[in-house]
Amino acid sequence: MSNVLILGAGRSSGSLIQYMLTYGAKHNWTITVADALLAQAQEKIGGHTAGRAIALDATNEPERQARIKQADLVISLLPPALHALAAGDCLAFGKHLVTASYVSPEMDAMDEAVRRRGLIFMGEMGLDPGIDHMSAMQVIDQIKREGGEITAFRSYTGGLVAPESDDNPWHYKISWNPRNVVLAGQGTAQYLEEGRYRFVPYQRLFKETRAVEVPGLGVYEGYANRDSLSYRKVYGLEAVPTLLRGTLRYPGFCRAWDALIRLGLTEGNFVLPDGHGLSVAGLVGAYLGEGQSTKTLAARVADFLGEEPHGETMQQLAWLGLFEEQPIRLPKATPALVLEQLLLEKWPLAPADKDMVIMKHEFEYVIANEQRSHTATMVMKGEHSGDTAMARLVGLPLGIFARMVLEGRVVGRGVMKPVMAEVYEPVLKELATYGVHFY
Amino acid sequence: MSNVLILGAGRSSGSLIQYMLTYGAKHNWTITVADALLAQAQEKIGGHTAGRAIALDATNEPERQARIKQADLVISLLPPALHALAAGDCLAFGKHLVTASYVSPEMDAMDEAVRRRGLIFMGEMGLDPGIDHMSAMQVIDQIKREGGEITAFRSYTGGLVAPESDDNPWHYKISWNPRNVVLAGQGTAQYLEEGRYRFVPYQRLFKETRAVEVPGLGVYEGYANRDSLSYRKVYGLEAVPTLLRGTLRYPGFCRAWDALIRLGLTEGNFVLPDGHGLSVAGLVGAYLGEGQSTKTLAARVADFLGEEPHGETMQQLAWLGLFEEQPIRLPKATPALVLEQLLLEKWPLAPADKDMVIMKHEFEYVIANEQRSHTATMVMKGEHSGDTAMARLVGLPLGIFARMVLEGRVVGRGVMKPVMAEVYEPVLKELATYGVHFY
Repeated sequence: MSNVLILGAGRSSGSLIQYMLTYGAKHNWTITVADALLAQAQEKIGGHTAGRAIALDATNEPERQARIKQADLVISLLPPALHALAAGDCLAFGKHLVTASYVSPEMDAMDEAVRRRGLIFMGEMGLDPGIDHMSAMQVIDQIKREGGEITAFRSYTGGLVAPESDDNPWHYKISWNPRNVVLAGQGTAQYLEEGRYRFVPYQRLFKETRAVEVPGLGVYEGYANRDSLSYRKVYGLEAVPTLLRGTLRYPGFCRAWDALIRLGLTEGNFVLPDGHGLSVAGLVGAYLGEGQSTKTLAARVADFLGEEPHGETMQQLAWLGLFEEQPIRLPKATPALVLEQLLLEKWPLAPADKDMVIMKHEFEYVIANEQRSHTATMVMKGEHSGDTAMARLVGLPLGIFARMVLEGRVVGRGVMKPVMAEVYEPVLKELATYGVHFY
Repeated sequence: MSNVLILGAGRSSGSLIQYMLTYGAKHNWTITVADALLAQAQEKIGGHTAGRAIALDATNEPERQARIKQADLVISLLPPALHALAAGDCLAFGKHLVTASYVSPEMDAMDEAVRRRGLIFMGEMGLDPGIDHMSAMQVIDQIKREGGEITAFRSYTGGLVAPESDDNPWHYKISWNPRNVVLAGQGTAQYLEEGRYRFVPYQRLFKETRAVEVPGLGVYEGYANRDSLSYRKVYGLEAVPTLLRGTLRYPGFCRAWDALIRLGLTEGNFVLPDGHGLSVAGLVGAYLGEGQSTKTLAARVADFLGEEPHGETMQQLAWLGLFEEQPIRLPKATPALVLEQLLLEKWPLAPADKDMVIMKHEFEYVIANEQRSHTATMVMKGEHSGDTAMARLVGLPLGIFARMVLEGRVVGRGVMKPVMAEVYEPVLKELATYGVHFY
């Protein structure tokens, strides 16, 4: 009889909670789902006998600690900033912890203490990071076992809308955190190409895309993710000449997103002046020079961008509502927040919409002086907006690994990422039974 | 007999210290100059009998507080982040405070307490902010007194090298904080043009310049400063349709600086990977795509920028050393820090070099239905690198105002900026005796 505490019942929690309830019923585990919104936790449990919904404000230390004390294992879907709090409590009270977020330097620094207490803190156990690590390491270890030397590794992931539910000119709908969509890529992307560093500043990131063929689906566009370099160490590829991690979008997305960047609309630090009285169109107009022009706003934007007035990019911008006199009512609005509001309105997954996740790894390697290549591709579509591929691919690895811990099938201790065969082999094997195949 | 404490004896302190020593001798004031580097304080005092040099780490609270307790008036040239500490002490111990830095929200919040204690906290009492406020308000108040309504106010300031000391293709040398030169303009600039907001994101700021004629000197280039909008309230111009504050550079500077931005070299948040082994040329090359090209780096940069290979911009970039194999030895280097190092090497004021400060205000206003305009321009050149126009124009207003306080000639109390006639009239009048003329 074990107690599992799941912190957070939001967008990506459905599949995880279902998985834990199913195995909870079999093994007599109690699955407590805690969320700031009690109804959200209740809805996800749906009256299942193994589940218990509670309201919890994770920033409330005494409450949070009381709940963690009662658990044997904690699965945290909290925002990254709150993970450190949960991790500190798990360490103090001797509880295992599983998360789908990047292992922060704070959490990494706990490794020795976690090990000493005989605990398992597994981070990056979702989709990206998560399934990307496991599926890549399975191939990398295999190539190394065969005596091969990896000369290039490129890996792309995209959380997209399925072609059959794609009915807007951006070919995009929101299946995860919309803030991350707006702020994606800000900073400088870093990767390796043929032994050389490549740095790409934000204002060029969505211009410098590459075509990525997805077998059976067609050609997508990939742009570089922020820091590919750190994966040299994580994947044991310290000497690899080419290493790139990227994000996939449908063709045409990046060019239009670059137009938003050029206009200035993705900026998250500039708060519009008090009492600005601007509409969305007024905000866009403020980014253009010719205040006295007699042309329409759309025509002025097309001039500024050097785009065909009725071409694809201008259709995308118009469809987003950028040229409409909709008032901006957000307090302390930044251009990025205004854009996020528009995306939430224009890019929702409708109830019957299917999302789609694509992951593609490309390997080049040398065995016995022979150059070879290998690709591994995974495509999964969701059922509807309440059962997305995104939620499955984030939640199932968490659930599968949590079950392995509870069943005593995990030997390692400390702060970990799922890059070792002990973890990725059983998790990938079970994921395959849920339709997660690499081909 | 009064005690004056000057915190900071760096680049901009020379004229201030000389001024205070001169009047200190006359009035029997003790001028204590405190700096982390005792020798720097001693050098600035030069053995003057009214001066006393001390070593002080301003972050050391007991030491700092002991010194402030002994003073009647404190002049702070500390970095902005440390002003709040000095201000808190001045409030606690009942001391007047004068600074050349922007009044922070923290300091603004002290206004009522400062007033209640009968104290004077004067901020923004240097050049920009400082002389800009005073010289603008003198004209604005005059136009209002005559019944005029101001329809446009544009104001430009530039800290430059004097034409006779200009011997590099950038036409620029460093007369103030080099870090501010590198990071200038990051964010979104905001101003008003004919009743409309204008927002300019960083990646377009140095492209969207305007020609500014400086009478007697020629044409310079102006780019918009970060937040012009806040000056509506400060200057009592709540309804003005056009309001722009900008920075002046010699023609050609902005185009080349924009090239640095396009390459990605002004980014201050991206730390180069450990053990990168890059030279300056290697860093620049990492920002270009074609790693296998047989062309020279300079030719590849020219291609990327769309610049003539031997045109002005490419000469400027070459002169900065961007194409040289100089190793990058800075720990935790960011591209912005690498660039700052290059600027310090390539743009120093040589001992005999003269700097030059230009300030130009442009007013448009309506009196009795008649449209009028007025400009006020100030140009000052330094004598040599040890006596710069920059140091005089930052230091003299501080000194003049501090003397006014010590002589009991300031009536107002509270946290202030120098926008009232009580302050700007006497300060500008005395500044004129030091050659600070608006024509």
